[in-house]
This record gives sequence, structure tokens and C-alpha cells, in this order.
Amino acid sequence: MIGVDLGGTKILAGIVDADGRIEETVEVATPMTSQDELVDALTGVVEELRTPEIAAAGFGVPGWFDARTGVVLGAANVPLGDLAFSDVLSARLGLPVAAANDANVAALAEHRLGAGRGLSDLVLLTLGTGVGGGVVIDGRLYRGWAELGHIVIVENGEPCPGAGCTGFGHVEAYCTGVAADRLARRVLGPQATARDLIEQRHPALAEIGWHLGTAIGSLINIFSPELILIGGGFGSAAGDLLIEAARPVIEREALSPGAERTRLAVAELGPEAGLIGAALLALDELE
Amino acid sequence: MIGVDLGGTKILAGIVDADGRIEETVEVATPMTSQDELVDALTGVVEELRTPEIAAAGFGVPGWFDARTGVVLGAANVPLGDLAFSDVLSARLGLPVAAANDANVAALAEHRLGAGRGLSDLVLLTLGTGVGGGVVIDGRLYRGWAELGHIVIVENGEPCPGAGCTGFGHVEAYCTGVAADRLARRVLGPQATARDLIEQRHPALAEIGWHLGTAIGSLINIFSPELILIGGGFGSAAGDLLIEAARPVIEREALSPGAERTRLAVAELGPEAGLIGAALLALDELE
Repeated sequence: MIGVDLGGTKILAGIVDADGRIEETVEVATPMTSQDELVDALTGVVEELRTPEIAAAGFGVPGWFDARTGVVLGAANVPLGDLAFSDVLSARLGLPVAAANDANVAALAEHRLGAGRGLSDLVLLTLGTGVGGGVVIDGRLYRGWAELGHIVIVENGEPCPGAGCTGFGHVEAYCTGVAADRLARRVLGPQATARDLIEQRHPALAEIGWHLGTAIGSLINIFSPELILIGGGFGSAAGDLLIEAARPVIEREALSPGAERTRLAVAELGPEAGLIGAALLALDELE
Repeated sequence: MIGVDLGGTKILAGIVDADGRIEETVEVATPMTSQDELVDALTGVVEELRTPEIAAAGFGVPGWFDARTGVVLGAANVPLGDLAFSDVLSARLGLPVAAANDANVAALAEHRLGAGRGLSDLVLLTLGTGVGGGVVIDGRLYRGWAELGHIVIVENGEPCPGAGCTGFGHVEAYCTGVAADRLARRVLGPQATARDLIEQRHPALAEIGWHLGTAIGSLINIFSPELILIGGGFGSAAGDLLIEAARPVIEREALSPGAERTRLAVAELGPEAGLIGAALLALDELE
């Protein structure tokens, strides 16, 4: 199986075995000029890795799909939209292709092979440049949008920085590495970054943790999952600090006994969760 | 099939045929003094309606369940908690019993027989004294909490009036008949009620519609449903006005093309949706 994680700066692809082990990877910069060039690059990385044993390819894409048709309706930070993604890639590659949102497939990977092994229900929030989400319900990946970064937590709040998003007060306006960089400059000076806040375990991170806790409270009241995972680049690095700061507001916002029943943890699979999850999705759909 | 809708003021029970038609109903006041008395009243209405042909009973309960065990973990406005509801009622009645949250079963009824017939995915918000929610995913009733009235829309906002809820800024603090009564007093004087606002199609209702639209924006970004229904006593009466006022903020908050793809409508089955849905749930679980 080949898994491909399409990101806003790079495309990471790899051969993944049935146990989720990565055997070989290829990485290229993400072409940002046009959809055609992007599709060329995506087929290119698969062709480069492909051997006669490869039965299918899976893609994690930073966009939202029509679950029934597989059409990418919109995407953040990459030039994709209104594209019958799986059909087009499958025709180009002559291979079965599966595709879903990148954070969705990361949730699948965490459920199968990471922090959520054996659980029935989990929610993953990926905090990076943006905020993504994935939900597993009854042991299966939920295929609705699950754009959890675009839940409103502050009505009429800060403008959402997501590309093409016109909303205000979304999680993505408060809980990203970008927001943490801004916070670092405010509290530590113009040269500081999110990394400095994390290294110093700076109490100012509680501000981001509070916003995250507000979102998590809502997510518990909606999904009552066994586990909520914090992943993504910023989330994996700051997760423990953010979870600690989020707890009081989660206890306040979640209906009882949600705060006690839902475990919070940092995602385990790191930056390769998307690649692995994309391959697992292809494996699932092939079966 | 017997369906029972447990409300904060009354218990409404009825015999429902396989097509969802109500043949006979019984109504009693909800005992608020103890769980034992409440369970007695619930078994009482079923015994009163019961004939030898009755194969099962279904209950819609204003509380949240552990989907795996069927235990009621908590409830709003009725004395229930930590009760293995279906097991206890089934033992008392000597009948198969199914139970779920009241707004959840109303969503099931709307999906099967109401405004959501033939759709794959819908979300129902019931606006009454409180705010309930139900979600149908891939044609099946979602059995997580779906307590959509307890989504935070205003971080650190108004205290949630839900019994036992310690949250702030929940949908239930802004979008109920109670909130509309308060609004009516503020804009029309001390004797006015929500009904006056609705009859006058008063522009002040746009305030509630805006809050509702904020919640609907989040719900589209999470569930990307085909349909969002507004039901419940207040919601059914004010639904058209609220939806009209909600549209601009939904267009702002929902990722494109969510605002165009998700249809908004008022629920169809009225105050009997819960009773019908409870009976349908029992029918489903018997099969």
C-alpha cells in the first residue's frame, strides 16, 4: 500500500505494510500554482515508489469531501477544489485510490495503530498551522467533514485565518502554532516563537489551553468519546501543557460525567500519522 | 409498539403502528420527587396502553446515555441518573425495551416519517424549555450524546440554565423559549412572552436567530448534513423567523459550499415526534 500525505508545504509519501510500518518514503515540495501541477506531483510520488506488489494508494488531503461522491469540495492552503479526487487519481495511476481529509486519516491511524488502539470512539484534533479534526465512531472513521478547527468557540470573535474561511471565532483562530507564535512575541518579545513558550513551559500557554478546553467541552457533549487526542506539529509538542490548562474549562463545559469519562492524551504517531492513515484507508477500501 | 416521551412536565405515551400512526395515547404528569416514582409512572402508562399484540416499548428520555451499556448517566429536568434504564424497565414490564435521548428519537422520527424522509444525514435541534439535539448519519441514528444544546457558542458567555449544567455560553443559554420570553419582556414589556414576538414577527427575534446560526455554522462544519431541522415547541413556532435571521451568520461561519448544500427547515412531526421516534426505536431494536 502507498500512503500519501498532502500538506501545505510538502507531499510525504511512503510504502506502508499491513501493520502500518513505513518501508520507504519520498518527499517533494507541494506545487502551489495550479491544480494540474499538484495532481502531477501527487501521481509522481506514487509512481516513484510503486512496485508491482502495490495494490492501491491512499491520500490524505487538507480539504473537505462530499462523502457520497468523493469530490473535494474545498481545501485549505492547497490549490484543490471541485475535483473528483479519487476518480482522477485512479485514472491517472491505473490503481485503486482512496482519499479523505488529512486529519481524518490521521485519526484512523491513531485508532488502528496509535493512542486509540482498541477503542470504539475517539476524536483527534491536529493543531499545526491550522486545526484539523478526525472522528472515529463505533470503530469506524466518520466520513462527514469533521472540520473541527472550524467550530465556533467565540461568537463574532477573531477572524478565522483558514484559507477561504470567512468565519469568526473558530478554533483555528486561537489554537494553532501560528497563534502560539503570536502569543510568544507578545509575552517574550519580537524574536520569540511557540517553541520558546513550550521549552519554558510558559504559563501564557494556558490562554490557548483555555480556548482548546472550550472546544473540547463541546466535543464531549456532542460525541462523548472515550478519548480525545491532541496531535499535529504544535499540538504534539505542546499537548501536555495545553491539556493541563484545558482541564478546568472542560470540567465546567462538559455535561457530567463527560469530563471524567473522556480521556485526553497526545497523539502517538507523530508527523507520519497522515501517511500511515492514508495507506490504511486504501487498505480498508480495497477490502 | 408503544412509544413513551418523557418530558419535564408530562409523560406522553401512545400505541404506534409500523407506519408511525398513533392509535391511542395516554398522558400523565411527570413525578419529580424521586426516580422510583418516575419509573412507576413510566411503567404505569405502558401497562395502561398494553394489549397482547404489543411486542416492545420505546422510551425517549431527556438525558444522556452510555451508548454501550444503555445506562442513563445524567438527565435534565427529571430525577434520573446512573440507571440501567432499558434493563430496569424491561424487567418491570416483561417486555423488550429500547431507550434513547428524547431529541435523538425525535430525529429518528423526522428521518423516517417527517421532514428528513429519504435523506442520509440530518441534524435536528429541538428548541423548547431547553435545547436538544439528534443526528442521523448514513441513515442511522447516531447514539453518542449529541447534546447539541450544550455546544459552546460564546466562550465564557451566559451561564447555561440546563439543570446540573455548569457551562457558560451554551446554545441552551440563548435559543430557548425561556430566552425568547426574556427577550419579549425586554423589548415589549413585562407582560409579553415569546408568543408575542412570534405573532408580531418581531425583528428582535433576529438576536436569537444569530446565536442559532452560529451553532448551525459549527454543525455544518462538523456533520455536513443534507438537512438541519428546527423543532421543539419554541423552534416549531418560531422556526421560519429564526432560520431567516440565522442565514447570514451561517453563510459566514460554514465552510464553502456548506451553507448552500445544507438545507434548513422546520421539523414536521410536532409534539408527537418523540413518542413516534421512541416507538420506531423499539421497532428497530426488536428487529
